[in-house]
Amino acid sequence: MSEVVERLKKALPPEALVTDPDRIQSYRYDRAMFCPAGEPVAVVLARETAHVQAAVRIAAEAGVPVVPQGARSGLSGAANAVDGCIVVSLEKMDRILAIEPVDRYVVTQPGVFNAVLSRAVAEQGLFYPPDPSSWEFCSIGGNLSTNSGGLCCVKYGVTTDYVLGLEVVLADGRVLRTGRKTVKGVAGYDLTKLIVGSEGTLGIITEATLALRPEAARPRTMAALFDTGVAAGEAIVEIIRSGVSLSLLEIMDRTTIKAVNDYKRMDLPTEAAAMLIAQSDAGGEAGAADVAMVAKLCRQYGAIECIEADDPAEGELLLEARRAALVALEHLGTTMIDDVCVPRSRLADFIAAVEGIAAEVDITVGVLGHAGDGNMHPTVVFDATDPEQARRAQVAFDRIMEVGLELGGTITGEHGIGVLKRDWLAQEIGPVALDVHRAIKAALDPENLLNPGKVMALGNL
Amino acid sequence: MSEVVERLKKALPPEALVTDPDRIQSYRYDRAMFCPAGEPVAVVLARETAHVQAAVRIAAEAGVPVVPQGARSGLSGAANAVDGCIVVSLEKMDRILAIEPVDRYVVTQPGVFNAVLSRAVAEQGLFYPPDPSSWEFCSIGGNLSTNSGGLCCVKYGVTTDYVLGLEVVLADGRVLRTGRKTVKGVAGYDLTKLIVGSEGTLGIITEATLALRPEAARPRTMAALFDTGVAAGEAIVEIIRSGVSLSLLEIMDRTTIKAVNDYKRMDLPTEAAAMLIAQSDAGGEAGAADVAMVAKLCRQYGAIECIEADDPAEGELLLEARRAALVALEHLGTTMIDDVCVPRSRLADFIAAVEGIAAEVDITVGVLGHAGDGNMHPTVVFDATDPEQARRAQVAFDRIMEVGLELGGTITGEHGIGVLKRDWLAQEIGPVALDVHRAIKAALDPENLLNPGKVMALGNL
Repeated sequence: MSEVVERLKKALPPEALVTDPDRIQSYRYDRAMFCPAGEPVAVVLARETAHVQAAVRIAAEAGVPVVPQGARSGLSGAANAVDGCIVVSLEKMDRILAIEPVDRYVVTQPGVFNAVLSRAVAEQGLFYPPDPSSWEFCSIGGNLSTNSGGLCCVKYGVTTDYVLGLEVVLADGRVLRTGRKTVKGVAGYDLTKLIVGSEGTLGIITEATLALRPEAARPRTMAALFDTGVAAGEAIVEIIRSGVSLSLLEIMDRTTIKAVNDYKRMDLPTEAAAMLIAQSDAGGEAGAADVAMVAKLCRQYGAIECIEADDPAEGELLLEARRAALVALEHLGTTMIDDVCVPRSRLADFIAAVEGIAAEVDITVGVLGHAGDGNMHPTVVFDATDPEQARRAQVAFDRIMEVGLELGGTITGEHGIGVLKRDWLAQEIGPVALDVHRAIKAALDPENLLNPGKVMALGNL
Repeated sequence: MSEVVERLKKALPPEALVTDPDRIQSYRYDRAMFCPAGEPVAVVLARETAHVQAAVRIAAEAGVPVVPQGARSGLSGAANAVDGCIVVSLEKMDRILAIEPVDRYVVTQPGVFNAVLSRAVAEQGLFYPPDPSSWEFCSIGGNLSTNSGGLCCVKYGVTTDYVLGLEVVLADGRVLRTGRKTVKGVAGYDLTKLIVGSEGTLGIITEATLALRPEAARPRTMAALFDTGVAAGEAIVEIIRSGVSLSLLEIMDRTTIKAVNDYKRMDLPTEAAAMLIAQSDAGGEAGAADVAMVAKLCRQYGAIECIEADDPAEGELLLEARRAALVALEHLGTTMIDDVCVPRSRLADFIAAVEGIAAEVDITVGVLGHAGDGNMHPTVVFDATDPEQARRAQVAFDRIMEVGLELGGTITGEHGIGVLKRDWLAQEIGPVALDVHRAIKAALDPENLLNPGKVMALGNL
């Protein structure tokens, strides 16, 4: 047995350490396809912050990398193991520590699932907005590390907007506390928001204080069907321009709708090329007026049908369909999920470009996404056993990012860089910003032990 | 003439350089009292990014510090000159470069005043929420560098929540572009929010892309009078607990109201110990219901009178009174303005503690602030020509921060650290966080040339 494993055994209780090779296998990958993953020497199932510190200290002494993991639901390979690493899994640190209704925050361990936390605070009349489609099987720690978005961002913003403070184990094993429990605070640099989205490369999050809101009113839901994806895109631009306040504005194309119908045995309409789903949680007359305004604009911009959900259950069903879209597409074949965010005024152009790429490259691309934010997930579906299809899939995947950048967008709106888009980061942010990334990484992790090779290639580090 | 000035003259057009000693004097201080300020060798009135780069490069070559300045309206001495420095003033970079109604952002130079920008976007039906009381005489660049708050934070958050991207001149003179023009984006570390609030110690902001919202409905305004400050604090806690959505919730005590009446020749009621001002911009029936709910809660928790503003003009007058509060108190004597933010549940405790400190130390403290955020500005008023009073003022000022920390709060909710609270930073954030601050500062500014001595004492750098 390796020296490192020997030392971990001495430092940790038996239930906090996995060395069995078969069990270790299940900690190698997140949900990203086509990303390389190495072989860990051990998995630490931390039960408390001290276990994380022990693992990081032992790794630092041995010069061995540490890869932090949440629920492994990520889509960019950020949680994939590297050879010889210690995986530090936070899945067993899954307790909600405090909910404060007046100060409106929750203190939580990172292993809590998003849906579990959301439901726990809802019981006290509170609302934690960030809601990735994977909310039933993604953890808060992973949400923080990738700065997750979700369906309600169009009104409520993303994860980083709700993070008041963090407890973080640094590369040398020390515990950093960032932020505060107050609504506002400007004492020093915003280390909290620097750690959020850094994908475990600057420290390992072991606790978070998250801001909450009062619960929202029951949403009203409507759907609109369009003959073309571009018409849907134009309607979205007009909806945004109108200033109407929606809590959700999603799009699914025919490929996606059909996949969902098959997978969930649903009966969504497939006669149209694209469906918009809109919600307003303004409540009462305001909510009704919002939804009516959206229907009016959709009709003006070519909707062939607008349907208002009769009751909340019907609205929830539409959302379930949207949330299941990615998994449904995965049942059609192998998938490569893009995550391009463009300025909203360019959404119709982007949809047209994606359709053009699919036709030109001759590959299936399901178009779905958070239309109200301009954050789209064109998903390339193909047969991975056919090398020629696999090649074309990669071409389409890359072209979609290219066109996103050309339209003034970003290569990732919410899924992160991981290893999947590492080579694209430099292209988006340029050499000066990359240098600054490397300088900050070197300042906080001089030996490059924390999740090495994720987010950026480390060059001379 | 010094070598540095000689080189600046060669590199810059005449209108971009001030070397006249009398003119230089007016660039030594911001609005903070009692903070040391040194003598600059020159002031660069940058007209474009290249001027900032030239100044920083010349400073770097000569090993001379650079102090960036906006409108010098800061309250912590962050913009104060240090001996031998080049002041880089951004006040002449005062153009709004683009307003995009659909994508809802504005691209601006840093020297634009907050009110100018707010009015320009309002003309296009858009809304830039951050609204410091000083909005008529503070610049966007300063707002960014201190992560300013304001009156509408209770609903709309603070400056950092609206920053999509920045152009920043680094310590080596290179230009860094951070962020994006899209609503969402997670490509790499959040350098944008690291720079925001860093008070010019990591780089000099030369351009910003700021998110906008659709314009809000006209606010409805009400005021409530209380017999004691503590009763007002208890009412605030209940208002927050109720979940009612207010766009403003401010408090002023009798000392402050009297000062405003004198300064602005107004006729605000002075029979009560404290006045709350609340606004809802929900519009229509929802706004009316919000204000009615607040009035009901205020009465339940001991308000002696609740007055609803008859029209928007009356509401605006109340806000003007609140915005003038600090300047009004400055007319009573010398002031030391605290900026403590406590968890909202502890607001009544905090007000009681401040009243206790004022009585015990025997000094006037005007209590005012952003009650809905728990962000209070207890302002010590004294006669600076009386050394014994000045000593007591300092004692009160420090004790107010101490009690803020004891209640789980922060020493600065929105004014920043500067030099005023530098020695308090370590006490709030602790040694590990201070080490991380120093490591980041050293990574981005290894020679410690950018605004040295601000935010933190630099120890071994």
